[in-house]
Amino acid sequence: MNDPACVFCKIVDGQIPAMRVYEDGVCLAFLDIGPLAEGHTLVIPKGHFVRLEEMPDELLARIAPVFPRLARAVLRVTGADAYNILQNNGRPAGQEVMHVHFHIIPRQPADGLGYRWNASKYEGDRGRQFSEQLIAALKT
Amino acid sequence: MNDPACVFCKIVDGQIPAMRVYEDGVCLAFLDIGPLAEGHTLVIPKGHFVRLEEMPDELLARIAPVFPRLARAVLRVTGADAYNILQNNGRPAGQEVMHVHFHIIPRQPADGLGYRWNASKYEGDRGRQFSEQLIAALKT
Repeated sequence: MNDPACVFCKIVDGQIPAMRVYEDGVCLAFLDIGPLAEGHTLVIPKGHFVRLEEMPDELLARIAPVFPRLARAVLRVTGADAYNILQNNGRPAGQEVMHVHFHIIPRQPADGLGYRWNASKYEGDRGRQFSEQLIAALKT
Repeated sequence: MNDPACVFCKIVDGQIPAMRVYEDGVCLAFLDIGPLAEGHTLVIPKGHFVRLEEMPDELLARIAPVFPRLARAVLRVTGADAYNILQNNGRPAGQEVMHVHFHIIPRQPADGLGYRWNASKYEGDRGRQFSEQLIAALKT
């Protein structure tokens, strides 16, 4: 299940140290070593999955409830009252370690972090066409 | 369960139109009306929860497996091979609609999107202290 070349698999196996904060049967959480803000925490599946699409439903169902539990602790310790959950798939999306990881990033007003928000809009019937294509793609 | 003043609750109830792409017993997905990229999709619980911490574990366990299923369809239709999952809690984190929503944002190389990555590091024993505080906070 593990990839001997993967730095997160090595953390799971204890071959590389990490600032661990939580562990259960399926996942591990530890502080990001290059935090965007103090308390920036990563949650990873213990098994090696490169991207979200590879994770079995049952595993995702087990891990997702861990996010708010950890977020509550992060907020309490940092004094922040806002946070982002972020998960990147593929290098163009900013994924640097090729083992699924969910970021919990505590936020403060005007901290200069956050997602670049450059909203567009759908012209004419383009959005409707898109939604119909998505509906069709979900059926295949 | 629903908030009559909430725009996403109105979408769930059909009072406001949306470019719907998926629906099941607990969640609804539709195209973001102000997309960061074509195919930018939102997944929301049908019930009104302002933040992730308010969502029951069982509900999160039901919704999480929907993300990769939708992401696969978004990638197929857009031709992208990368995407972000993003979920914002609180205004300082960029939350604008006060009803939990998960963004699926398809990404292309050099699209100018993504999270502002301004990594820091923990000085001295600060990280270790932080992880210990988090471990303690998780126990309360």
